[in-house]
Amino acid sequence: MRFFSFFERSTRAFHHSPTYSKLIVLFTVSGGGLVAYSESKSDNGAYNVVSSQADAKKKKVVVLGTGWAGTSFLKNLNGSLYDVQVVSPRNYFAFTPLLPSVTCGTVEARSIVEPIRKIIKKKTGNIEFCEAECVKIDAANKKVHCRSTLPDGRKEFLVDYDYLVIAMGAQANTFNTPGVPEHCHFLKEVEDAQRIRRSVIDCFEKASLPNLSDEERKKMLHFVIVGGGPTGVEFAAELHDFVCEDLEKLYPDLQDLVKIYLIEAGDQILNMFDKRISSFAVEKFGRDGIDVKTGYQVVSVSDKAITMKVRPSGEITSLPYGMVLWSTGIGTRPVIMDFMKQIGQMNRRVLATDEWLRVLGCDDVYALGDCATIQQRKVMEDISAIFNLADKDKSGTLTIEELQDVIDDICLRYPQVELYLKAKQMRNAVDLLIEYKGKETKEVDIEGFKIALSQVDSQMKNLPATAQVAAQEGAYLAKCFNNMEESEHNPEGPPRIRGSGRHRFRPFRYKHLGQFAPLGGEQTAAQLPGDWISIGHSSQWLWYSVYASKQVSWRTRILVISNWTWRFIFGRDSSGI
Amino acid sequence: MRFFSFFERSTRAFHHSPTYSKLIVLFTVSGGGLVAYSESKSDNGAYNVVSSQADAKKKKVVVLGTGWAGTSFLKNLNGSLYDVQVVSPRNYFAFTPLLPSVTCGTVEARSIVEPIRKIIKKKTGNIEFCEAECVKIDAANKKVHCRSTLPDGRKEFLVDYDYLVIAMGAQANTFNTPGVPEHCHFLKEVEDAQRIRRSVIDCFEKASLPNLSDEERKKMLHFVIVGGGPTGVEFAAELHDFVCEDLEKLYPDLQDLVKIYLIEAGDQILNMFDKRISSFAVEKFGRDGIDVKTGYQVVSVSDKAITMKVRPSGEITSLPYGMVLWSTGIGTRPVIMDFMKQIGQMNRRVLATDEWLRVLGCDDVYALGDCATIQQRKVMEDISAIFNLADKDKSGTLTIEELQDVIDDICLRYPQVELYLKAKQMRNAVDLLIEYKGKETKEVDIEGFKIALSQVDSQMKNLPATAQVAAQEGAYLAKCFNNMEESEHNPEGPPRIRGSGRHRFRPFRYKHLGQFAPLGGEQTAAQLPGDWISIGHSSQWLWYSVYASKQVSWRTRILVISNWTWRFIFGRDSSGI
Repeated sequence: MRFFSFFERSTRAFHHSPTYSKLIVLFTVSGGGLVAYSESKSDNGAYNVVSSQADAKKKKVVVLGTGWAGTSFLKNLNGSLYDVQVVSPRNYFAFTPLLPSVTCGTVEARSIVEPIRKIIKKKTGNIEFCEAECVKIDAANKKVHCRSTLPDGRKEFLVDYDYLVIAMGAQANTFNTPGVPEHCHFLKEVEDAQRIRRSVIDCFEKASLPNLSDEERKKMLHFVIVGGGPTGVEFAAELHDFVCEDLEKLYPDLQDLVKIYLIEAGDQILNMFDKRISSFAVEKFGRDGIDVKTGYQVVSVSDKAITMKVRPSGEITSLPYGMVLWSTGIGTRPVIMDFMKQIGQMNRRVLATDEWLRVLGCDDVYALGDCATIQQRKVMEDISAIFNLADKDKSGTLTIEELQDVIDDICLRYPQVELYLKAKQMRNAVDLLIEYKGKETKEVDIEGFKIALSQVDSQMKNLPATAQVAAQEGAYLAKCFNNMEESEHNPEGPPRIRGSGRHRFRPFRYKHLGQFAPLGGEQTAAQLPGDWISIGHSSQWLWYSVYASKQVSWRTRILVISNWTWRFIFGRDSSGI
Repeated sequence: MRFFSFFERSTRAFHHSPTYSKLIVLFTVSGGGLVAYSESKSDNGAYNVVSSQADAKKKKVVVLGTGWAGTSFLKNLNGSLYDVQVVSPRNYFAFTPLLPSVTCGTVEARSIVEPIRKIIKKKTGNIEFCEAECVKIDAANKKVHCRSTLPDGRKEFLVDYDYLVIAMGAQANTFNTPGVPEHCHFLKEVEDAQRIRRSVIDCFEKASLPNLSDEERKKMLHFVIVGGGPTGVEFAAELHDFVCEDLEKLYPDLQDLVKIYLIEAGDQILNMFDKRISSFAVEKFGRDGIDVKTGYQVVSVSDKAITMKVRPSGEITSLPYGMVLWSTGIGTRPVIMDFMKQIGQMNRRVLATDEWLRVLGCDDVYALGDCATIQQRKVMEDISAIFNLADKDKSGTLTIEELQDVIDDICLRYPQVELYLKAKQMRNAVDLLIEYKGKETKEVDIEGFKIALSQVDSQMKNLPATAQVAAQEGAYLAKCFNNMEESEHNPEGPPRIRGSGRHRFRPFRYKHLGQFAPLGGEQTAAQLPGDWISIGHSSQWLWYSVYASKQVSWRTRILVISNWTWRFIFGRDSSGI
């Protein structure tokens, strides 16, 4: 029965495709499928008609990706309102913030993944999953081209959509540095973490082989991490703990030969954190013997060594290595690049959406998570329209009362206004005018209004590419989808600045809940909202509780906690599997 | 310091090798190694001399393999008596009886492995490990050629030995069936089990792709197991449980399409077990919908289908498959075959040892576990010598008293005598003569003695290739090594039948502790010593307790038990990693 409805949808998907005729042939030749099809049609005919009529009303949502954004969207979506098709090369959700822990066996890979079908099963409605990667988005025909990534399953097929949710994430950014794809490890996927774990053990086993000089052993035990962001720093810390707490006992001859390097092109590591945190990290790493090299730009990587340019002097230096982790940030996937060309975003580096996560220049397509960025509208672009909206009596000047009437809507539509007020420690819009005109001001004309708000757009920032942002975007978009019908009659959003009426939804607003940087040795730096900073063992326990509580299921929660417990008792495993 | 002594041993290993001069060049060019060498020599000269003098007295034991036999040998060896070098392509010991559980995620791979270095660390003495495979045994020069299996580490090197312990295990036996190595899974290593797990999930994901007929989906969900031994049966049971308890919930459209086949060339599955157990297994599998096909011999495997000959009729039939597991028994590794040619065992299929696990035709080389078999000496070959030994008064006849004096030694040297007595329900040697001559017999001549013992050798059996046998052999051999010096003066063994004096050690005697065959659905068949048979849920609990207690470390014990517990609560994970 379920197969039948799936089949029906698939043929619909192929309706405008050149492979449709081929498909018919396939079904006629193989026979069995056709028989099954007609059987289920005749047996349950009445029911089928009803269900397909009901289905016909439902719009089809295609979700690309099962990462933070896609999974958060699925978990929050009311599945009974849509026909949902999820397409992803991975049939599981991975709790990526624990990936650095997986690289050294502090946590097992299996403990941080949850099958997406298990998540779907808990939802009502018709949600289907298929393990394939999207190779092309055809927005003009409302179709995506997909290809199975399974062994012997590399057939291409089409999936049509009414709404498309792109949550495909990003790939590692090599900045076109030669040798990086061939010789470096990345840390984006669970498989990457497993490969790194195996590779670390391999380096130790290689250095234990006979007939090697100390010099050769040393080279094999140079672990180089390129990129001083949170991933690189956390991996350096994990690796240091793994070496000191576990491997040195098992490879006592090698303990003095191990060296960990952290290479950063900028002036400091953890530059998205407060300065106090990055200085603490540098100090701690110094004590631990981790060599932090800031101002070193990698120019190429060969099979044996990594070549760097020292920033101020331009001097070229080379460092032999046993293993390199490349974690310098994220780049756009080729399929997204191709899509951007189609929709006229060819000059941009990242796919742009508006504040409602709708892809600019393309209807019914949404993008969220690491593959997209929100292009926040500037106040200055709309300043005249804002003035006109606020100037209810059309006097040509705004009184304080008029401004107060609309300031909440303006803050909602332009979050940078609120951020600006906060940054300047102003309580409300009145302060904005006071700063501009002085204490006694009561009204302002368009020129004055422009000057008063001229600095506001400087507060605009792109959201960081974190799990937190992606998850919030997914939940937000699902809420919009759930209220799609209701909001048509009762729009929830702020008034349209250009045009009449209100926006259907409030724009997406990110709520920063804080960020952690584990530094090893049971110490973590935490930067919480309100610039509250905590470094040390207590934040490590906060980290444990937050990460345990954020797990997607009770199974992964229990597994992660027991992994931590067994690690405390028995240490990490160093078997080369 | 430790590096120095290791280095010293390595150069010794290369003394007679053609690569020695090359090695010197390498060390001179790289420099650092040479400096480190001379430094440590001058710094700790006095200590070095002492330690190398002490070392010089110790014999060097090289152990090939870290499976059941090798690890059991290491665990029981008194490490302070020898200089031990372990060479194995795997730096861990794996609890292989749980491999079928790993294929479906009932137990995690990581839970059944223990780093060999951790096992070594608990021992006193100088035991070194190196991750490499032995590619050639050169018994004439007492050297083994080894090659690292690590990426970029494929250098060959030599290791010399005074005693060599070969415990390399066996490989899957394909019986030269075409297509088997390319298309079938095996289940010998941990990696095999991980690959099978991924492959099972892949089959389900492939069958969930759109645009497939029911016929095609069915083919993808044919799981074929070739070989009705304990491994094949246990995997079939595990897979059936995985499908019924976990996968059917997540892939509801596919539940009626899955089919598991168990192909056996012989007349019955589990033929090493009691008939009652194999009939119970067939009945249970019948109820479970597992298709047991006995008398089907596989003739070839292509990428899509498996071709079989039906035994009685000779009819050829073909079965399309999604996944095939090949588990038809074990074959000899090429390096062992090559070694057998060297030592004149070319006409044999398996490396033969005597009852003291010494390789026949080769001094100071021992072999145990799946790579070797004990060639038990026949009573009939020695019958005259036995008669002469027993006939103390050289009267030409044996009295009952004379026979009783030596029967214990004979039973020790020829275990088949004891087995024969047991099988015939005889209490002692007197019964043997009574059976031959009648109630009133008191003595027997050589011809009569021959006739009385003529059936005894029929009780000779090769030991099964099980973990239990390998572990007992390892422990036995370690005990021999530990008492090597002591036994020179006080031999423990039975009197030499040909020649004078006693054997240094008692011959190896296998003690069968029983065998399990898990059949799925929390039911296990157990065949315990004394042909005590138990089938059902209670034996499943016995199985749990025995397997938990036999774990090599507390870490693996706790992990395996918690895997079982979480599986009961949360089911098995089906993420495709």
